[in-house]
Amino acid sequence: MEKDRSLLKIPYGTRDFLPAEAAGKRVVEDRLAKLFASWGYEEVVTPTIEYLDTLQLGSNHSVGSHLFKFFDREDQTLALRHDMTTPIARLVSTRLQDSPLPLKLSYISSVFRYEQAQTGRQCEFYQAGVELMGPGSPATDAEVVALAATGLLRSGLTEFTICLGQVEFLHGILDQYRLPAEVQHDLRSAMERRNLVELNQLVDGLDLPENAKQVLKKLPLLNGGAELLQQAYDLALNEQSRRALDNLSAIYRLLKAYRVEKYVRFDLGIIRDFSYYTGMVFEVYAPGLGYPLCGGGRYDHLLADFGTACPATGFALGIERILLALERQKLPMHSLPRDVYVGYAPGQEEAAIERATSLRGQGKSVELAVSSQTEAAARESQQQKNYGALVYIA
Amino acid sequence: MEKDRSLLKIPYGTRDFLPAEAAGKRVVEDRLAKLFASWGYEEVVTPTIEYLDTLQLGSNHSVGSHLFKFFDREDQTLALRHDMTTPIARLVSTRLQDSPLPLKLSYISSVFRYEQAQTGRQCEFYQAGVELMGPGSPATDAEVVALAATGLLRSGLTEFTICLGQVEFLHGILDQYRLPAEVQHDLRSAMERRNLVELNQLVDGLDLPENAKQVLKKLPLLNGGAELLQQAYDLALNEQSRRALDNLSAIYRLLKAYRVEKYVRFDLGIIRDFSYYTGMVFEVYAPGLGYPLCGGGRYDHLLADFGTACPATGFALGIERILLALERQKLPMHSLPRDVYVGYAPGQEEAAIERATSLRGQGKSVELAVSSQTEAAARESQQQKNYGALVYIA
Repeated sequence: MEKDRSLLKIPYGTRDFLPAEAAGKRVVEDRLAKLFASWGYEEVVTPTIEYLDTLQLGSNHSVGSHLFKFFDREDQTLALRHDMTTPIARLVSTRLQDSPLPLKLSYISSVFRYEQAQTGRQCEFYQAGVELMGPGSPATDAEVVALAATGLLRSGLTEFTICLGQVEFLHGILDQYRLPAEVQHDLRSAMERRNLVELNQLVDGLDLPENAKQVLKKLPLLNGGAELLQQAYDLALNEQSRRALDNLSAIYRLLKAYRVEKYVRFDLGIIRDFSYYTGMVFEVYAPGLGYPLCGGGRYDHLLADFGTACPATGFALGIERILLALERQKLPMHSLPRDVYVGYAPGQEEAAIERATSLRGQGKSVELAVSSQTEAAARESQQQKNYGALVYIA
Repeated sequence: MEKDRSLLKIPYGTRDFLPAEAAGKRVVEDRLAKLFASWGYEEVVTPTIEYLDTLQLGSNHSVGSHLFKFFDREDQTLALRHDMTTPIARLVSTRLQDSPLPLKLSYISSVFRYEQAQTGRQCEFYQAGVELMGPGSPATDAEVVALAATGLLRSGLTEFTICLGQVEFLHGILDQYRLPAEVQHDLRSAMERRNLVELNQLVDGLDLPENAKQVLKKLPLLNGGAELLQQAYDLALNEQSRRALDNLSAIYRLLKAYRVEKYVRFDLGIIRDFSYYTGMVFEVYAPGLGYPLCGGGRYDHLLADFGTACPATGFALGIERILLALERQKLPMHSLPRDVYVGYAPGQEEAAIERATSLRGQGKSVELAVSSQTEAAARESQQQKNYGALVYIA
């Protein structure tokens, strides 16, 4: 039966959500949707499929190899979206072009990346996020960071750390010494992977003043609480890097007003793997998970690539990762209420339907037996399915 | 700027949901998810991508040409799912194989069919539905029909017609005269398209008794209220066709107990375009829409194809079509509550954040201005964005 067995498989990197998992997903997504709406963010839905050229715009070069690509009937290359920021940038530059700014948008949807699959990192996964198009100010960055923190709290998480960075701090150093693009790329890559040995070797081979070398080598280690900012000011070698720190200080001051500062740490070594970030960037980690629950930041140039120059900032929360963190932190998983199981004796089908309909009319969740059964069997069904009460029509 | 313009296009048959449309979708999906759960249906989520072989199992031959196909990195053919019934049959035969029956499952997700796109019929569209695996009885068929009706009511629709048919009525006639498969296919195709001219020509060319010819020609016209069933009994030429009518009578009796009979009509000409249906079938129509809002029926053999023999019944509601019907019937569209807009004078950023945070803590939906503005400008923003109240921090 080899053929039949293969019919039961699912493609690499995909998964099924069984009822308990899907219920958790539904509850978390529902809470996030309500939260985003209650902060004035309007949901949009874009196609699962986009033209390859659209998705590659604004992403770094490596994204192409992670896309699920195929051809339409006119032989144009399509791909499954790998993030939602790019499709929303397209939407803002087309059908929402005449909407007044600021534009606060949200989404909850699946995205696709061909990568090595592991727990919490499938090739198809679900993201909930927001994008704020408007002034490129600390106020808008602080709002999205505070909203991400509130989203995680609303999802049921209690322990997590928001790591705040600023890509301009590193850019300032790289630009000051006019390092060639290829060298910059290698340095970023080593930093992104936090490979200190490789980073040290790369830096040692560069023709730079010793203090600049020290800062580059230290960058992945530059993380800590509020005191880290002061420490970084002492290392900031140029105006651009200092302005990056001023920006983080201003955002942090506002995060205190949002009362989420206790979740925040600084990490100047954050290099997000999308090249469109231009300012504040952040990642959120939870105990026991080796990858971020959430990533985001400011991207002031992406919209211009689509023809609408406008600063923007946003984040994406990973739904499966939130569910995994809840499970690992042994926090209560979400489930839906189950009030009444209605069973019935032979010949009582219509009476049972009428009773179930009446109970549903009172707002109760009611499962009706699919066939007649004894009262003992009905009691067993009620208990097995976790309904609070049994109504038996004899 | 030809290149830039092409970056702004979306693929054929796809669409963006702007905020008002996405809000309607969110509200309808949320209500359906809660409704399905409150009747004891558990949600599942399956991958957007499946192996082609899996999707083609149990579907009719024509489905292949409507699939979006592509290759994985091992050169196996994948496709975007074209319905949810087949993936759920796969799931029931694998990870849910040991779950006790009945199994009541639900889903809300997008599916993909390469077809000519038109309003309410895109190539990617959203479905909400249920599948009930358990006894192949009128009780389970009546439950899913009643649940579909309740789902449409809960979505806000007030006017719709459920057309109930039974594929065994036609099968009985076709089997009785042992018509070749090719002839059966042509007859079904003409009936599905309700092409009476073609049907009459086909039937006239067959070697059949005159009364059988009359029934075949009349089939697409056999629709009406409860009286139609009696009329059909007079035409039923064989045991199989009569049993089909008995089945519809029994389902109708139970639909009265559910109090949804006023929405029900009979239509023996319904030929759903999936060949897996084996008994009761139904479609729901609303005034002003030329295609069904909902389709479903009994499919007792599909699960056996995946290795788990079990009768099953279910339906899928078309989310975009529900939204379109609401719009065409000029029924109130769904929108989310907007309580307070918080604006602030220069220097009052932190005070404004604290006020917004406090109002949100009271459960209000609050949009915070992204920068300082005059009270008059804040008032204008509040009114333009439809917030019920303005709080201005001076």
